Amino acid sequence: MAPRRSAFFISDRTGITAEMLGHGLLTQFDQIEFTETTLPFVDNVEKALAAVDEINAAGRRDGLRPLVFSTLVDPAIIDEVARAEALVLDCFQIFIAPMEAELGVRSSHAVGRSHSVANGAGYFRRIDAVNYALSYDDGQSTKDLDNADVILVGVSRSGKTPTCLYLALQYGVKAANYPLIPEDFGTMKLPGVLSRMRGKLFGLTILPDRLHQIRSERRPGSQYAALANCVAEVREAEALMRNETIPYLDTTTRSIEELASTIMHQASLQRHIY
Amino acid sequence: MAPRRSAFFISDRTGITAEMLGHGLLTQFDQIEFTETTLPFVDNVEKALAAVDEINAAGRRDGLRPLVFSTLVDPAIIDEVARAEALVLDCFQIFIAPMEAELGVRSSHAVGRSHSVANGAGYFRRIDAVNYALSYDDGQSTKDLDNADVILVGVSRSGKTPTCLYLALQYGVKAANYPLIPEDFGTMKLPGVLSRMRGKLFGLTILPDRLHQIRSERRPGSQYAALANCVAEVREAEALMRNETIPYLDTTTRSIEELASTIMHQASLQRHIY
Repeated sequence: MAPRRSAFFISDRTGITAEMLGHGLLTQFDQIEFTETTLPFVDNVEKALAAVDEINAAGRRDGLRPLVFSTLVDPAIIDEVARAEALVLDCFQIFIAPMEAELGVRSSHAVGRSHSVANGAGYFRRIDAVNYALSYDDGQSTKDLDNADVILVGVSRSGKTPTCLYLALQYGVKAANYPLIPEDFGTMKLPGVLSRMRGKLFGLTILPDRLHQIRSERRPGSQYAALANCVAEVREAEALMRNETIPYLDTTTRSIEELASTIMHQASLQRHIY
Repeated sequence: MAPRRSAFFISDRTGITAEMLGHGLLTQFDQIEFTETTLPFVDNVEKALAAVDEINAAGRRDGLRPLVFSTLVDPAIIDEVARAEALVLDCFQIFIAPMEAELGVRSSHAVGRSHSVANGAGYFRRIDAVNYALSYDDGQSTKDLDNADVILVGVSRSGKTPTCLYLALQYGVKAANYPLIPEDFGTMKLPGVLSRMRGKLFGLTILPDRLHQIRSERRPGSQYAALANCVAEVREAEALMRNETIPYLDTTTRSIEELASTIMHQASLQRHIY
């Protein structure tokens, strides 16, 4: 095993893009253990100098040059960070020159344009979508379900709530969710309120073993969590969804962002924010 | 105004990293209007060929070469996409060679390593964090508040709930929130349950005009939403937070990810997931 090496994600704003790209790149080198640090809001030369000190100190401590993933925009700040005793990978500026050549215009070199609150409509859309997901969680309300962009259905603890919240926060999509409960399986029909919304329904399912594990954390030893009950509920929920031709995804081996982006794609949903 | 031009974000997984980086780059060219499309889960050559067809069709329709932002990992898929009649910007592979040189090892060229559900602990941590934020929303529960990584305080509708949910989903952080209500302002003291958690508290505030606007959408014409009431509540909440030396942020001009990443940074919180 090689010694630990430091990696930094540096940005003039939140650092989330640098983290996601840089972390994805680091996972391609799984022989090496990295110590990952985000340096957000590095938006003036003084902060850049402090960041360089922190990077250089990590390099001396590790005895290895750190890796630095940057989404900095301001040339003066970039120049300072480039002086760090590190491999500095510029994940943003490197694409600006070919884009300028292709587009035939100069870039604005302006910091923090995306997610800007100047875009007030997008901000409200997102807050609205979060409030919507919270109000229409677990079948709490069925009034105005027509306003939903998508309605997730599935057995209790199949992953509906976090997926709805991710759809709201990442995409500004209004996602309601409605549980499929044992009472629905007797008739093998959708609850009445859902049957006229068929086009908006998207199902989630889960392996019974995993469902048993999740429910057992919440209510250990209960009938609700019993493996036999989980097996039966999942089997019947899947039969109901097939019967009603509702598309569905297995959440067992998918992360929340995979579920959300797959639903966006398969249900052809429109994203409202970036 | 130049004509619209198409931009694609292509990935073998969710496309979220490509979208965030690519969208950030496009905002640097605000003279041009872009039509943005995500092509996720392009994980075999057949899907790559279909993606190239879609990209080429957009180029013919626009009469301009599309821009393509790629985080593809598999060389065979990358080769197909590189044949599109477009400016293909490789946002991932371009960094692999300098990283291999620096690290002295080969990359695994493996798809979808980050956010992998193989990392079961991270998956549960995130679901736990979401459930925590929902259970400890708006002071609903105060039992086990000791388990919170951070507790957001502020007046009603200052942005606490979406920020807590973002902290849970993006970072796996357990974030509770507790409202500051007019009853607290009489004594200028924290509610008892919070006073022994001072080290975990982080405040949110908001400009009264904006608060008035947000509350008016929810309860138009109410005393709760009245501008004079918003002015008074915000003034008193800020005085209370200063009095109790609780750090606080103004949410008026910040996006949810800015709030969340600033809190992570200023409160030195540990992220639990990537």
